[in-house]
Amino acid sequence: MSETKVLLDYGSGGRASQRLVSELFVRNFDNPELNRLNDAARIELSGPLAMSTDSFTVDPIFFPGGDIGSLSVHGTVNDVAMLGAEPKYLTCGFIIEEGLPMADLERIVVSMAAAARHAGVEIVTGDTKVVPKGAVDKIFINTTGIGSIIADPAPSADRARPGDALLISGTLGDHGLTVLSQREGLEFEVPVKSDSAALNHLLLKLVRAIPDIHVLRDPTRGGLATTINEITEKSGCGCLIEEALLPITDPVRSGCSFLGLDPLYLANEGKFLCILPEEYAQQALDIMHADELGHDACRIGGMTEDNPGKTVLQTPLGGKRLMNMLEGEQLPRIC
Amino acid sequence: MSETKVLLDYGSGGRASQRLVSELFVRNFDNPELNRLNDAARIELSGPLAMSTDSFTVDPIFFPGGDIGSLSVHGTVNDVAMLGAEPKYLTCGFIIEEGLPMADLERIVVSMAAAARHAGVEIVTGDTKVVPKGAVDKIFINTTGIGSIIADPAPSADRARPGDALLISGTLGDHGLTVLSQREGLEFEVPVKSDSAALNHLLLKLVRAIPDIHVLRDPTRGGLATTINEITEKSGCGCLIEEALLPITDPVRSGCSFLGLDPLYLANEGKFLCILPEEYAQQALDIMHADELGHDACRIGGMTEDNPGKTVLQTPLGGKRLMNMLEGEQLPRIC
Repeated sequence: MSETKVLLDYGSGGRASQRLVSELFVRNFDNPELNRLNDAARIELSGPLAMSTDSFTVDPIFFPGGDIGSLSVHGTVNDVAMLGAEPKYLTCGFIIEEGLPMADLERIVVSMAAAARHAGVEIVTGDTKVVPKGAVDKIFINTTGIGSIIADPAPSADRARPGDALLISGTLGDHGLTVLSQREGLEFEVPVKSDSAALNHLLLKLVRAIPDIHVLRDPTRGGLATTINEITEKSGCGCLIEEALLPITDPVRSGCSFLGLDPLYLANEGKFLCILPEEYAQQALDIMHADELGHDACRIGGMTEDNPGKTVLQTPLGGKRLMNMLEGEQLPRIC
Repeated sequence: MSETKVLLDYGSGGRASQRLVSELFVRNFDNPELNRLNDAARIELSGPLAMSTDSFTVDPIFFPGGDIGSLSVHGTVNDVAMLGAEPKYLTCGFIIEEGLPMADLERIVVSMAAAARHAGVEIVTGDTKVVPKGAVDKIFINTTGIGSIIADPAPSADRARPGDALLISGTLGDHGLTVLSQREGLEFEVPVKSDSAALNHLLLKLVRAIPDIHVLRDPTRGGLATTINEITEKSGCGCLIEEALLPITDPVRSGCSFLGLDPLYLANEGKFLCILPEEYAQQALDIMHADELGHDACRIGGMTEDNPGKTVLQTPLGGKRLMNMLEGEQLPRIC
């Protein structure tokens, strides 16, 4: 695009919008259905289908390990995949503040396109609104994804059962701490980096190999503590987590300690919880360890008949305490 | 909800978010899949599908004839239906400014629920972000819709052919003029009202009865002039419109004249263009006239071999002038 800033005209629906769409979006997202530019995309999929939507308002829009563009692809791809589905198509809705540097928008779009290619999904239709300065902070992106459900029965939070193993695919708290430290202008000795990633390829390997995974969930906003509490509440199981087993990197641990944050409540954008019958736990871990997104996967606990609906954390010294859902708001605009 | 304002906590993903979702969204949108509250919804659909997304940033959020909630349902339902499809499921993503009166949010959600019921679609999954005061103006809503394509072949802008009749389902400019006059605090002698409506039931009657509708399009942002130019550019046809046949109400005509606006460039949110072989034109008009959303439907012109890619307006006195696509931005935040 020749202009250096995004103008209101680009959201008019008229000639300028058309130019933005063809020179930026079509060029980068390039696929036959998007290129047709109808009001709706025509897609070929047969049911049952998984469909998920997310709006991304992360601040700052660029951060170590990603940006609002790649995050908006990863987040929705992951939510679709958590239903044991293969994500295929995304829609995207941009809400852009008048005056956003065109270079920022281009960088975001290029990053989205790369993330979509890597995840194996196509961005088939979209919408762009440009609003006057001050009506939105820089840029917000909504993505909605759809894909065919492969797992039968599909994983669901209410399917956790006492005796199930609880696995996590990697380290906790990286995304949340990274975004917060960037926003506050903090630098740590060992830099932290968002874990933002598309988990669908790894998840597909799991659901194809293992016949009955009970729950898959990504611990995003509200972190591990909130996600696991949703699962215990919906399934009626209890959950016992061994604190000593929780994988947290040293930089995240010390950054959290410095800022008074609990990594169990921090958002992750490239991790998932997997709850499944104990007999399949080792097989699942082997599959995860063979994938670069599951190197640090481990068992962190299991589902119990005791304490139905509650999550109990067992400390390294043998004490036990309740781990509650996030109560207030720790970090707005984290994703 | 007991609070009078939307707090940041409601977007945390934690306990407060859960309360907002269950007490407001689930209660109003109520359907088995939404109520399951997984990261993704499971839906049953097959065959060629139409999928469309739109973000709504309209200012003001309440206006005569609708609000941002009903508009966000109608807009996406209509876009899906324009592909000759039956819209079935919607997702919705709310981005809410901290401090929005809870009564406003409730009014919007109730209005969305009523619009969805009336259109016969279910809101099966959603996402809520609350951002700090000043990061967004009140509330923006994204909806994404999906449905099965009924028409075969499906209508598409590039399928217009010379000799086709050009029909419009009703009067032009009502939505655009209404929103603008509200925003500017203008009152006209005869009040104007948005035409925001779900067109899917009427469109379905048309695609079921008439074997080969070439193009269906709703003239939203950029108005009739922009939409018809997209069609002539994609199809390579010319288009001749008779100005005297354009249905515009007297209040819209005089409001536009007062404000120096051209109703052909104003957004409509409950109208569609229908381009089809001449032999079916009367049948299509009869179907439209029998529906309350098509009372004022009429033929406004036809597609031509002359002037390929251009739209020509024939004035009542017999003169002809080119009708171009919207060039700049007439009205930001109109939808």
